[in-house]
Amino acid sequence: MSSSASASDRQRRSGRITRVGIVARADLHRAARVLVDLGEWLRLRGVDAIFEERTSSLAAEGDAGQKTVRLEEMIGAVDLIVLLGGDGTLLGTADRLAMAGASIPILGVNFGSLGFLTEITLPELYDALEAALNGDTPIEERLMLNAEIVEDGRVLEHVRVLNDVVVTRGALSRMTDLSVSVNDQFVARFKADGLIVATATGSTAYNLSAGGPIVHPGVDALVVTPIAPHTLTNRPVVVPASFTLVIQPLGGGTQPADVYVTFDGQIGHPLPVNRIVRITRADQPLRLVRPTTRSYFDVLRQKLKWAER
Amino acid sequence: MSSSASASDRQRRSGRITRVGIVARADLHRAARVLVDLGEWLRLRGVDAIFEERTSSLAAEGDAGQKTVRLEEMIGAVDLIVLLGGDGTLLGTADRLAMAGASIPILGVNFGSLGFLTEITLPELYDALEAALNGDTPIEERLMLNAEIVEDGRVLEHVRVLNDVVVTRGALSRMTDLSVSVNDQFVARFKADGLIVATATGSTAYNLSAGGPIVHPGVDALVVTPIAPHTLTNRPVVVPASFTLVIQPLGGGTQPADVYVTFDGQIGHPLPVNRIVRITRADQPLRLVRPTTRSYFDVLRQKLKWAER
Amino acid sequence: MSSSASASDRQRRSGRITRVGIVARADLHRAARVLVDLGEWLRLRGVDAIFEERTSSLAAEGDAGQKTVRLEEMIGAVDLIVLLGGDGTLLGTADRLAMAGASIPILGVNFGSLGFLTEITLPELYDALEAALNGDTPIEERLMLNAEIVEDGRVLEHVRVLNDVVVTRGALSRMTDLSVSVNDQFVARFKADGLIVATATGSTAYNLSAGGPIVHPGVDALVVTPIAPHTLTNRPVVVPASFTLVIQPLGGGTQPADVYVTFDGQIGHPLPVNRIVRITRADQPLRLVRPTTRSYFDVLRQKLKWAER
Amino acid sequence: MSSSASASDRQRRSGRITRVGIVARADLHRAARVLVDLGEWLRLRGVDAIFEERTSSLAAEGDAGQKTVRLEEMIGAVDLIVLLGGDGTLLGTADRLAMAGASIPILGVNFGSLGFLTEITLPELYDALEAALNGDTPIEERLMLNAEIVEDGRVLEHVRVLNDVVVTRGALSRMTDLSVSVNDQFVARFKADGLIVATATGSTAYNLSAGGPIVHPGVDALVVTPIAPHTLTNRPVVVPASFTLVIQPLGGGTQPADVYVTFDGQIGHPLPVNRIVRITRADQPLRLVRPTTRSYFDVLRQKLKWAER
Repeated sequence: MSSSASASDRQRRSGRITRVGIVARADLHRAARVLVDLGEWLRLRGVDAIFEERTSSLAAEGDAGQKTVRLEEMIGAVDLIVLLGGDGTLLGTADRLAMAGASIPILGVNFGSLGFLTEITLPELYDALEAALNGDTPIEERLMLNAEIVEDGRVLEHVRVLNDVVVTRGALSRMTDLSVSVNDQFVARFKADGLIVATATGSTAYNLSAGGPIVHPGVDALVVTPIAPHTLTNRPVVVPASFTLVIQPLGGGTQPADVYVTFDGQIGHPLPVNRIVRITRADQPLRLVRPTTRSYFDVLRQKLKWAER
Repeated sequence: MSSSASASDRQRRSGRITRVGIVARADLHRAARVLVDLGEWLRLRGVDAIFEERTSSLAAEGDAGQKTVRLEEMIGAVDLIVLLGGDGTLLGTADRLAMAGASIPILGVNFGSLGFLTEITLPELYDALEAALNGDTPIEERLMLNAEIVEDGRVLEHVRVLNDVVVTRGALSRMTDLSVSVNDQFVARFKADGLIVATATGSTAYNLSAGGPIVHPGVDALVVTPIAPHTLTNRPVVVPASFTLVIQPLGGGTQPADVYVTFDGQIGHPLPVNRIVRITRADQPLRLVRPTTRSYFDVLRQKLKWAER
Repeated sequence: MSSSASASDRQRRSGRITRVGIVARADLHRAARVLVDLGEWLRLRGVDAIFEERTSSLAAEGDAGQKTVRLEEMIGAVDLIVLLGGDGTLLGTADRLAMAGASIPILGVNFGSLGFLTEITLPELYDALEAALNGDTPIEERLMLNAEIVEDGRVLEHVRVLNDVVVTRGALSRMTDLSVSVNDQFVARFKADGLIVATATGSTAYNLSAGGPIVHPGVDALVVTPIAPHTLTNRPVVVPASFTLVIQPLGGGTQPADVYVTFDGQIGHPLPVNRIVRITRADQPLRLVRPTTRSYFDVLRQKLKWAER
Repeated sequence: MSSSASASDRQRRSGRITRVGIVARADLHRAARVLVDLGEWLRLRGVDAIFEERTSSLAAEGDAGQKTVRLEEMIGAVDLIVLLGGDGTLLGTADRLAMAGASIPILGVNFGSLGFLTEITLPELYDALEAALNGDTPIEERLMLNAEIVEDGRVLEHVRVLNDVVVTRGALSRMTDLSVSVNDQFVARFKADGLIVATATGSTAYNLSAGGPIVHPGVDALVVTPIAPHTLTNRPVVVPASFTLVIQPLGGGTQPADVYVTFDGQIGHPLPVNRIVRITRADQPLRLVRPTTRSYFDVLRQKLKWAER
């Protein structure tokens, strides 16, 4: 993964930002006024403002008349996306864009509490956007994953993942019994409530609750963290992101297999014993426009309520 | 809870053991021969051997002609139960007998690996039984719980529990949001994969996987352990067993409630927001006939693979 | 341990409180004014105010003329102690009084942040004291321990402990190698940075940092928690407070023994291989006057920053 | 860090191995016979066997007449080192050679239990050596660190580290109070028993006891793990190995600073408040000759007693 610095250089070389996509959480009615203002603000600077279709409906509650496209149609049509919502909205947007092959820089604005990905607060929006339009803001690349559900060599599902792939037991099972390998090397068998494969970005989410470490986004690695493992020495393992990771449910004894896999916290897919989950690094990273006023550790300390100096 | 010594005294005062119930795991076909031998061995000593009905079928694979009753009919009809199987079999048997109001001493014999409750190995069976018939074996009392599912003051389910009450999310939910109180004092709100309320006996089971402490059976307490808590400071809490503990699922925001409660690892019951789980100490403890050759810590070290001296 | 209710009953039966001892942290200069006011307030109610000698010096910064005694002389001379400081001051005071055989109820007032033991804030002082004088405040009993350092059967040190006994490696050692037994039963060998034996009261202190559980003061137990154990399955163990616990350092191989034992965080005593630490329940508990406005769990939630309802 | 494959390529291109250094743990008297045999075996293949001086004394217990040099004199004089001992011996040897600027491949043979670094057992020695001489064995590069103690910009100590840098409290202190920064960004203040900065190689040592994750050697990162942190949300953090990490003890309030820093478990250096520890990536990695018969995860499973398939 290239460093922020070089990514930022590319951004500056790519010329001026003349087209900005606007995406908001679909039910964020209180953003209506901001959306209209944002459109105005951009047009006054000679920048095209293009609204995602559901966001456009929100904005229309305040005003109307904006250019409207589907999210995937923003690819090639905008130079930057301003996203209003929370980390969940950014996750979903990033996953959909990545699946469509795009790598559009995203500037995330949080409505509500500070997010790990949506670090810019509403009062900071226009300063941050001004800086981004001027090419003054570094763009940070975040590892994304390809995750596939495979049965007999056939790919049944194929998604992009920014945070984590989670394999868990269903409500009827007592535990999962999973075999994990990386690059065809057997790692271990995990008898546990489940298993989390998290990126650095996802390391501060579910992974942290399950006892996994925080991983700085500059580390090119995955964390494999068992949830409530039966074997007490089954500890979180950090492996290179370049490795191909395979999770296979084992047909466990007396009770029926009842295992699910979830990508970035979305709908779970059943994972019977004849299917595997295969995880590889995605071609394109997420490109995140981050403010220079706040370091990664500033956000971490605030979110985790670490004591200050 | 009275000490082992006084429980043992009561056992000796209760007179000679003249009737022994025999219970085995229902699918333990390889126990057939042992069951027949055990019946013979008892009869030779002038002791009645009374078989649980499914156990009787197993024994009939080896021989036949034994006295057969349903498990609950052993109450008042036997002085001691010899149980062959694993900890799971003993759990289920203890729960059913306790529910029927019985407190018959149980001598647990493990088939397979050493259990926490079934500590006697097959080669030790007759020595242990001999000692028990002679009144030389202390009887250890283990706390049992009443657990109820209550809706609008009405008890929908009522069971006895030896190991743990577990409230977890269903396969469709991302987490549970639970309010816990003891003796009507609010303890905390737990956003987590779930919550375990374990007895000392259950502390070495699921509780341990979730990060809870080991609790010696002589401690009259419950452990409340969150599973993968969202709030990292939500740590396991040990509370007096005399307290009434109530768990209430909170109706969480956008997604439908999808919460289950499980007693001693049996079938899960749905726990919608209008129901609570109420846990109190059961009137009767489990009475466990334990060998004198192995201490609680001997078993613990062996099961947890702790380094020896 | 008797319940709060019955302890409270005894308190009311013991007649009126006519003599109050006053103890403050020795360097708490900003308490001078409060100490003088407190003396006045008590005298106005016809209650004797008796100052501990160093506290008296503090008070003299504001005014003078108060009755002054050494801490130990308060035994038999006061019915209640009002203590101003933090949990550390209360720990030290409780340990000294217990060592001298006393069991005087203590009302702890925190200067600074809320304490686990000093729960009463300055603005609440006179209401709490009024209630205590009226016999309206329950008195909570907290387990105290006898801890001894023994060499060849001879007791070298003998102290009372409210929070914890901690055995740790010195700066020169890499780890301790400790053998633990309870009631002459071998528990385990712990190769670790050290070992904490905490009461319920101490469970929220060092024990919590080392991964031990929170134990409600109503649970009559000790927690034995290894610090950074070499064997990953060496988990915290909760044992009955009635057990005699012995910790013995093992002479470990190539490097010189360098092990220390500390009682309630005070000065460390060296623990060479020919000495053991023996821990039993103290005859007298600490008697803590606690406000009725705040439950144990209210304090816990606030101190651990648990999310509220 | 280049991959094993490319390192292996370089090894093959560097020509034949004609000179082998032999190093053993200084007190490994029972290796005398093996050392002599090993010398013979190499000479029969036309390979020079050069003994480290203390190893030479050991070998002389079996026989005599071997070429003898100081460890540092092996640099430039041998193509490969065969090391007999345990992980500790390999750590010390690697640190000394790295400090002297060398990067000689090491083949580690364990005497006693399987090591993480000394994976080759005695019966496997000659097969492994044969393969290495033939250039058939991949060489794995392991990150090494520069660690410096700096006072007023002046470097007081400068060492190479393969496993970990550990900052801990002395026997007289209750905790350390440490400020950590990476690349001049403030990370956090850690009030804890201490702090471990571990490489992937060191992640399975002290780091694991303190709750840190296992890090695969292919991940180019450091783990920063607090020991028994006072703030429960202070969790292990994985940061890029390219970052400069600085640990500064803070002068803590009432008690004298009593902080020590230890490199790879060797003698501790005092770390008063006017000194810092600075950690950077070393220029040269350790080059480890590893057998192809055992994967990283094979060793991990065996050492951690993970259940097998």
